[in-house]
Formats: sequence, C-alpha cells, structure tokens
Amino acid sequence: MEHNLPNTISLLTRTPAALNALLRDLPEAWTFRNEGENTWSAFDVIGHLIHGERTDWMPRAKMVLQFGETQSFEPFDRWGHAREIQGKSLTQLLDEFARLRSENLGELCALNLGPEDLERRGRHPSLGVVSLSELLATWAAHDLTHLHQISRVMAHQYREAVGPWSAYLGVLQCAGHSSAS
Amino acid sequence: MEHNLPNTISLLTRTPAALNALLRDLPEAWTFRNEGENTWSAFDVIGHLIHGERTDWMPRAKMVLQFGETQSFEPFDRWGHAREIQGKSLTQLLDEFARLRSENLGELCALNLGPEDLERRGRHPSLGVVSLSELLATWAAHDLTHLHQISRVMAHQYREAVGPWSAYLGVLQCAGHSSAS
Repeated sequence: MEHNLPNTISLLTRTPAALNALLRDLPEAWTFRNEGENTWSAFDVIGHLIHGERTDWMPRAKMVLQFGETQSFEPFDRWGHAREIQGKSLTQLLDEFARLRSENLGELCALNLGPEDLERRGRHPSLGVVSLSELLATWAAHDLTHLHQISRVMAHQYREAVGPWSAYLGVLQCAGHSSAS
Repeated sequence: MEHNLPNTISLLTRTPAALNALLRDLPEAWTFRNEGENTWSAFDVIGHLIHGERTDWMPRAKMVLQFGETQSFEPFDRWGHAREIQGKSLTQLLDEFARLRSENLGELCALNLGPEDLERRGRHPSLGVVSLSELLATWAAHDLTHLHQISRVMAHQYREAVGPWSAYLGVLQCAGHSSAS
C-alpha cells in the first residue's frame, strides 16, 4: 500500500505498549541474551529505539521541512544506544521509550502535515534524496524490523530446547538481516 | 539455554497482551493484508494461535503424560484456523486467544510438572519421539515465530512506501520460513 500517515501514526503509537507487554519483568534469560558476538539482546534493541527517538526520526523530519535537500541528515550512530543503556534497567528503558515516542508523536501531529508536505525532499547521507513520506513510513517499518529481530533473538535462546521442532519453526531459519537505519 | 519451565510460562503468559497491544483497533490495512496468495495476514495468525491452543499444545502434553510413546499425536491442521476466524472480528479473536491461553496455562500449572515429568516421551506423527520438555519449549518458540511472521507481514505492506530505506530494513529481506507446527 502507499504510505498513509494515519496508519503510520497508529502503528507508532502501539509499539511501546506492545514491547512493554512482551518484555517487562520477563526473565533476563530472554531479554539480556543475544545471538552471539556483536549482536543485540532485546535490551539493546530498546536502547536503539530510544536513540532513534532522540536523534533520528523527528530531528530528520524537521530538517526536511527546514532545509529540504540543501543539508544532509546527521549520520545515525548504530552504536549510539551504548550510552542510552548504561546503568539502566529494562524497565527504565521501556518507560523512556514510551515517553519519548509519545512526545515525538505529539510533535508530529502538531506539524499538521498535508499531502504536499509529505512530498517534500531531504537528503540522506548515504541514500541521497528521500521524501518526508518515505522517512515517516520507515519510522513505522523500523519498529517492525526490531520487533522481528527481538522475536528472533528470543527464539534463538530455545534453539536447542525445542529439539526436532527446530525444523518447523521459521524464526529459527531466519539468518537476521539487520543493517543501519 | 536449556529449557526452563518458569521461563516458558513467563513468555506464554505475555504473548496475548503483546499481540493485543500491537493489533487491537489497528487499521485493517495492517492487520488484514497478507504477503500474497496462500500467505497469512496478522488476523489469520491469531486464528492459527487459537487453533493451537485448542488442538495442539495442552492436548499433546496430556497425551504424553497419559500414553507416552505408544500413541501418536493427532496431526496438527495448519489450515484449521479457517473455522476459527469465520465471521469473527480481530477483537473477538484477540479476546478468544487471551482466554484460551489463560485457561491452558492454568491447566499446565495445575499439572505441577517436575523434572522427571519433563523428560517423559511422546510420539509426534512426523518427528517421531519427542519429550514433554521439547513440546513446551516449542509452544513458547511458536509464539515467537508468529510474532516474527506478523512483524514481517505488516512491514511488507510498506515495502514501496519506505523508498530507498528498504535496503536497510532487515525485515524486508526476510524471505519467510514458516512451516507446519
């Protein structure tokens, strides 16, 4: 389907509550383990989502509106979550993510974007010219890519425990495909 | 990690609330679209999870305890959700899934399974001899495989809308790997 701003906002609104319902108070054996060296746990992923709320989505949207294609976005730091998670509990991160997302959606709605705004162009440091519509659709799809990742990372913890059923569980065949955003 | 029954129950307890927070009242453009012919929408997946609660996990667990390896499980009908979703709304399915899961976890806890029970063996119609421990670990991993699937199916709806960012979104590279359970 084409990008639809109300649909994007509906999804963005629900992600913090969905992650909260899945992860809050879950044993650390699920939330603090990763898929091996240089991979992320669910805890790391929430830190990454927080970092995106602070530095990626709304800051870039405002740059499109203010500077158009004349100025490139700041490159996103894929390891920028390191300082977000330092000394925090998962509960704190979930609360922080919900708070930042809510504030950002408040700002987004206050922009009262119309169809012509969504067609405005900005400049991504690697991808080149992108539209505001594409940026906002990516914000929603980025939530889904990390929900996809969290479910895979958690399922990985039971790779041996499921015995012969591993052949039937699609999530255990998924090689992981994450990259920068 | 090895199978841990309390960890399994923690996850199984949270899945209905997580899916509810993600999907309830979300626009149908997200929840009723699939990935093409003979694939499932998020709505179909909830029907499948309901069908599993009725016919797969606890019925099989009780068969292991009652019959051991002497009697094969009933084959699971991967298209059995067709009758679960007929004439229902997504809201009704989410409520039904939560109710059945809660009942099943009540039954599971009432069995008061010890380590020696978890080692008991049953017979899967295709996989052969399996343990109760493997069955219960698979119940949890199966929730995760479908959360993984739902996030992928939903992200697919924005495949075009994200423009050049599609190259960066891991979920859009995932080919899907689901099979029978």
